[in-house]
Amino acid sequence: MNHASVPTASDPIRTIDVIRKKRDGFELSPAEIDHVISKYTSDDIPDYQVSALLMAGFLRGFTRAETVALTNSMLHSGDVLDLSGLSAKKVDKHSTGGVGDKTSFIVAPIAAAAGLVVPMISGRGLGHTGGTLDKLQAIPGLRVNLSLAEFQRVLEKCGCAIIGQTQQLAPADRKIYAMRDVTATVESPALICASIMSKKLAEGIDALVLDVKTGSGAFMKKEEDAIALAELMVDTGEGVGKKTVALITDMDQPLGHAVGNAVEIEEVSSVLQGRGPHDLLELCLELAAQMLYLGDHAASISEGKSIAKEMIGSGKALERFRAMVQAQGGNAAIIEHPEKLPKARHRAVISSSANGFVQAMQCERIGSACVVLGGGRERKEDSVDHSVGIIVHKKVGDRVATGEPLCDILYNSEERAEGARRMIERSYQISDVPPRSQRPLVRRIISKSDARPN
Amino acid sequence: MNHASVPTASDPIRTIDVIRKKRDGFELSPAEIDHVISKYTSDDIPDYQVSALLMAGFLRGFTRAETVALTNSMLHSGDVLDLSGLSAKKVDKHSTGGVGDKTSFIVAPIAAAAGLVVPMISGRGLGHTGGTLDKLQAIPGLRVNLSLAEFQRVLEKCGCAIIGQTQQLAPADRKIYAMRDVTATVESPALICASIMSKKLAEGIDALVLDVKTGSGAFMKKEEDAIALAELMVDTGEGVGKKTVALITDMDQPLGHAVGNAVEIEEVSSVLQGRGPHDLLELCLELAAQMLYLGDHAASISEGKSIAKEMIGSGKALERFRAMVQAQGGNAAIIEHPEKLPKARHRAVISSSANGFVQAMQCERIGSACVVLGGGRERKEDSVDHSVGIIVHKKVGDRVATGEPLCDILYNSEERAEGARRMIERSYQISDVPPRSQRPLVRRIISKSDARPN
Repeated sequence: MNHASVPTASDPIRTIDVIRKKRDGFELSPAEIDHVISKYTSDDIPDYQVSALLMAGFLRGFTRAETVALTNSMLHSGDVLDLSGLSAKKVDKHSTGGVGDKTSFIVAPIAAAAGLVVPMISGRGLGHTGGTLDKLQAIPGLRVNLSLAEFQRVLEKCGCAIIGQTQQLAPADRKIYAMRDVTATVESPALICASIMSKKLAEGIDALVLDVKTGSGAFMKKEEDAIALAELMVDTGEGVGKKTVALITDMDQPLGHAVGNAVEIEEVSSVLQGRGPHDLLELCLELAAQMLYLGDHAASISEGKSIAKEMIGSGKALERFRAMVQAQGGNAAIIEHPEKLPKARHRAVISSSANGFVQAMQCERIGSACVVLGGGRERKEDSVDHSVGIIVHKKVGDRVATGEPLCDILYNSEERAEGARRMIERSYQISDVPPRSQRPLVRRIISKSDARPN
Repeated sequence: MNHASVPTASDPIRTIDVIRKKRDGFELSPAEIDHVISKYTSDDIPDYQVSALLMAGFLRGFTRAETVALTNSMLHSGDVLDLSGLSAKKVDKHSTGGVGDKTSFIVAPIAAAAGLVVPMISGRGLGHTGGTLDKLQAIPGLRVNLSLAEFQRVLEKCGCAIIGQTQQLAPADRKIYAMRDVTATVESPALICASIMSKKLAEGIDALVLDVKTGSGAFMKKEEDAIALAELMVDTGEGVGKKTVALITDMDQPLGHAVGNAVEIEEVSSVLQGRGPHDLLELCLELAAQMLYLGDHAASISEGKSIAKEMIGSGKALERFRAMVQAQGGNAAIIEHPEKLPKARHRAVISSSANGFVQAMQCERIGSACVVLGGGRERKEDSVDHSVGIIVHKKVGDRVATGEPLCDILYNSEERAEGARRMIERSYQISDVPPRSQRPLVRRIISKSDARPN
């Protein structure tokens, strides 16, 4: 096959020509991309043309300029939140998704306590990863479907709020994401970037910290893929005038000990009370420090970390969390009384069948085991059981004896528990010697090319 | 990105997995292909999944085994016509589509007049090319949606009939053909082959002559692509026991002078009355000769040509055309009174801005200009304006003076006319010297490996 002729700028834009151009490997212009995004949002282009274009883009790739244009068009497909009434800097954090990742509930209150505004619009769990909104809704009474006016009132009062996607912000992303999900076009760096960045930039933020997960529990299994996505997102954010930094962080094992909805909220309370797991605390301090630095509340990352630690040590972050939970209608008594969170009826121990050291974990299996227990969704229509989950006792590098507990599972169905147990057992790799090396939790920091302090 | 795991044979077939498999470049099994074709035919798979699969297949390619499986599944997605009640040989002709290609309306009456039966089931306009049915429906009253019983009655009476695809024959092709048209997945050899061969084999024919166009106005711009497609189709046809031959013919410029629906019918009348353009007549004689040879009504191609000429000279072919038009409900008075065909309200001349010779034409632009005028479809829902079109005065090799007409355009909208004018002006390449060489109209004949007479 050879290339069809490419229309020149003077011709009116036709969707079929845009599809053909991408199919043939040419770079689309911002006007062509905007034609597709705006007409698709208004239902003037049918699904089948967009899915063909998505597949062509998936296989041919999108350039960096196309990715920026795509993000811009999706960002402006609806309203952009106007938070200019709030004088503080607006800074958000976004994670690409992992297992046991509950950092949002910790860093948002830290940053708010230190004077930033954190307008966080989050998603549901899909695949093996948990969803921020699902976890938050483990708190009895808590509402995530606030109107944008309510969202702004919570932000004014607490400095942070976490809600779900709305019809008003980046509507194009919602349509395109649904289409990608059913046409095998999810794993495209440009489409992932545009989806994340359009939603985040529609929050009206000044700066964004990205937590790009890599490893066996992440969507990006290979570090080079994670770096490529991170660079693309940082370039895109900076390209539209927002300070953007990305951390490449480890997801070869769950973050912290708790995996599930209610159990993760309980672990969040512990961290905010100064008692949480070391790895989770470390990552939260790093992310919060980056937010404070980008929001001009710290002169360096290390100063940012000191401030973040102080916000936890002083209890100020905990109070912001409590205020946010209450402002969103949730029962904040769960902080002191975690027994008020949904509880699974049964608890079982998964014991080690060998002596030795945990050499590695197949982390995606841990996440999938939680989905099997009912804690996540296999299909979009599924409901979530907030009470079930996994408590991970042994992590990579830990010494373990035969019969010693690896994990506890919290469950409501014996059949589901059996499936989860098999997955968890298969996820552990135990050998006689400790792992030869362990990689740092924060593997790399991607920022704009100019040097930044540490 | 890394590859998703490919499901094993024991898993039930899921459409998303089939899309992913083709996206990642694997060969689909006959069962997977049949899953998609049968479920799409029964509306159990949505358009957007099929369009994503078509684009993946377009870019990744289909193997010869996949092409045969696709043809088979599409052929058996409905009934296969039984014409055993007609004793004459059933022979059809099919063109891969070009600009100004109205040979069907000439060769079918010629072959019928010479004693063959031509059960022609045709399509609508695809991309920049005109559609046989659209042109035929420029004739007032003419019906192309005959039932199969009506189709057989017209065949018995006239020896030829031209109708649209029916729900009963190859229904899968009907849906897929429409989808390809609007998703820039037309020019795939495997999809073209499966579409043509499934429809044609469902007509219950004994032999098939294929007119595979190549050049700037064809889907196959390069001759080697046209040859590859021709070989694929000849192999597929012979593989299921039907005599099949393919002619590789020139489409570097429009065939004849008329491009559009009504204007092409008018040109057909002229040819059948012995007055048509030389290139169009020459190709019709060649195609008809091949049909007569394959249908055992001529001992050689040259004898076939003599018979074909005689059918025109004697007026017998014209009478078959008239009978067919009448039998299908059309007003045959348009033959003697072309003013009874739909007429555009306006006519404008496009003049040459240079002295010299027409060196080349960008023939696809001429076809697209006709679509812009309203003579073809940009989306499958669009209706067609039968009255608009282009009359091409100057063709490759012609001498032209500044201000002399290159084309006339027949139009109903000034805005559309302006767009078409720009496209036509850009399609002409005029230089001081005549073209150094001109290729023959019939560039090559592809048949089964055993030798055939000329």
